Amino acid sequence: MCSMLLRSAIVCAFAFASAVGCLAAEPVDTQGPLVLQSEGSFFIGGTAHHATGLSGLTTGPEVTREGTVTTGQMYVQYQIPAKATHLPVVMIHGGGLSAQAWETTPDGRMGWSAYFLRSGRPVYLVDQAGRARSGFDATGYNKVKLGEAAAKDASPILVIGHEFAWTWFRIGPKFGVPFADTQFPVSAVDEFYKMWIPDLNAGLPADNPSYADVAALSKKIDGAVVMGHSESFMFPERAALLDASGVKGMISLESGYACATTFTDQQLATLAKIPLLIVFADHHADAPEPFGSRWTTSMQQCRDFAANLTKAGGDVTFMHLPEMGIHGNTHMFMLDKNNLQIADLVFDWIDKHVEHRAQ
Amino acid sequence: MCSMLLRSAIVCAFAFASAVGCLAAEPVDTQGPLVLQSEGSFFIGGTAHHATGLSGLTTGPEVTREGTVTTGQMYVQYQIPAKATHLPVVMIHGGGLSAQAWETTPDGRMGWSAYFLRSGRPVYLVDQAGRARSGFDATGYNKVKLGEAAAKDASPILVIGHEFAWTWFRIGPKFGVPFADTQFPVSAVDEFYKMWIPDLNAGLPADNPSYADVAALSKKIDGAVVMGHSESFMFPERAALLDASGVKGMISLESGYACATTFTDQQLATLAKIPLLIVFADHHADAPEPFGSRWTTSMQQCRDFAANLTKAGGDVTFMHLPEMGIHGNTHMFMLDKNNLQIADLVFDWIDKHVEHRAQ
Repeated sequence: MCSMLLRSAIVCAFAFASAVGCLAAEPVDTQGPLVLQSEGSFFIGGTAHHATGLSGLTTGPEVTREGTVTTGQMYVQYQIPAKATHLPVVMIHGGGLSAQAWETTPDGRMGWSAYFLRSGRPVYLVDQAGRARSGFDATGYNKVKLGEAAAKDASPILVIGHEFAWTWFRIGPKFGVPFADTQFPVSAVDEFYKMWIPDLNAGLPADNPSYADVAALSKKIDGAVVMGHSESFMFPERAALLDASGVKGMISLESGYACATTFTDQQLATLAKIPLLIVFADHHADAPEPFGSRWTTSMQQCRDFAANLTKAGGDVTFMHLPEMGIHGNTHMFMLDKNNLQIADLVFDWIDKHVEHRAQ
Repeated sequence: MCSMLLRSAIVCAFAFASAVGCLAAEPVDTQGPLVLQSEGSFFIGGTAHHATGLSGLTTGPEVTREGTVTTGQMYVQYQIPAKATHLPVVMIHGGGLSAQAWETTPDGRMGWSAYFLRSGRPVYLVDQAGRARSGFDATGYNKVKLGEAAAKDASPILVIGHEFAWTWFRIGPKFGVPFADTQFPVSAVDEFYKMWIPDLNAGLPADNPSYADVAALSKKIDGAVVMGHSESFMFPERAALLDASGVKGMISLESGYACATTFTDQQLATLAKIPLLIVFADHHADAPEPFGSRWTTSMQQCRDFAANLTKAGGDVTFMHLPEMGIHGNTHMFMLDKNNLQIADLVFDWIDKHVEHRAQ
């Protein structure tokens, strides 16, 4: 109980500092039993089509080369708390990751999915279309192997190595050297590296199927707050532009570059009807090149996007954590040591801007 | 309450029919709230090594071609019920699938993971090493694209198309035509097809890292019943041969071909210390060629393996469902309409042969 009260006090302190206004945030019980109304999984979206290159194997009955396959579907893993007191939240992971990024942190602490769930929110974790349990279109690689397609035409795959993850995602200025104030659980970095899986998004259609899948999911569950991170920063907005009926709030966390997108006035008018929270963490300019310039440019582009959307009548909140007195957070702040403190800020924003519970 | 009593009665009826002996099985509450002590995820295993071919991209800071990557790790998703009254169960999915195969069925019914959990068992769902959230080694495909490796040397990928899944996995004798007595939820087959994801196991080392990962997982959690299906039929045995200390029971479901493995007397002696349940479903000989011959050969090989292990002193139970009066089940019987009925048979076996609760 003591830790709950402490957490409320911390939220208030940050709320004062950020002029968000002091809110007596509901304490989240992180220790007791978790009581669920239901849980399960399903797929949303996906298109069946005829394909060749189904197998690159050369022996066995698996050599069937052509047939019908389904691609573009999105795996959805959901949990509904026994006492749901808030809107559902759809969580979309970033590049080179799966929905695992929202679960337990590398050092074994509670991740955002469990914390959101315990705060009374139904949670829908998705693996992006073309990744992890959602599968991917592997036929192109088999065709190259079988000599039916040119090697250079195969879709490139992004594999994020340890050195790259450390510096790009701002654990520190140089591989193996953390920032002095880092919030990253550095001692567990080897577990962090296991989270990174091949990213095949370069091979997806120009209209990433995840946009339509997220829009359909949000509609299917009668409305949700949709949250994207990094590669999926703009997925809430992209989903809303296809079908805004289920998107009740948009949360865009730490874009690498997606804010360069130019929206038309009509698109801005659509997005302006949905509250938007943008969050950026710390040490953007401190990252080594080429990442430092890229992060600072991206944050500025997102500030410009926020300004444009505000001008169009939108309710946009831009949180730059260091300006709120929260220092040392990495690109992966949902895994950082103060991850639940930042989640509390998100809860506060949802309360005020989407659910209008506290003014 | 009525449905619980009904289920117990059904178990007894089948138990009589199969000479397993009538057991007053504990009823499983499938309707009420689910109360968990804890849940989360982590990775087990994995090896860091230097690699080239990290990126096949040609623009952006992601072009870094070499660095350190971790491969071979296994993603583990766990749930511990508030009242755990049985040993944990580790569930390993089959080829072309992820751990999703144990979750909700294509037609939205309760899958084995939830049913096992609600029966008082901690459940550990894994994505096989080299699949889904466990990632895979993509560097070979990038090297082919970049001209650094020959296309023919790329690892083949298995993609299981609709036609293949229908006939190979014994929904019916011909694509689109179900067996008259099929237990498969045919109306939801389109959702079933979305479960199939590329299988990259052909590119794994000869000693599949999943064996060591499962052994390490079973040990880490202080003992578990380990269950494999189809491609992972023999994973419980393979894990036990590396380190049997955590493997308290082995359940091998519907091998496609793994029973051809020849074990030494020493290996059989090791395996004979752990109770083993083998389950095969229906319509093996009715599948179209080449599958029909393959299934019947596989089942005979598994019978031979069971006989050899029994001769070595093992406690081996071989369940061929049709011989027990249960007809119409497919290769994917954990998704079939009577999936919970078959789970009850597994519970009964664990009770008697591993936990020695009922004799």
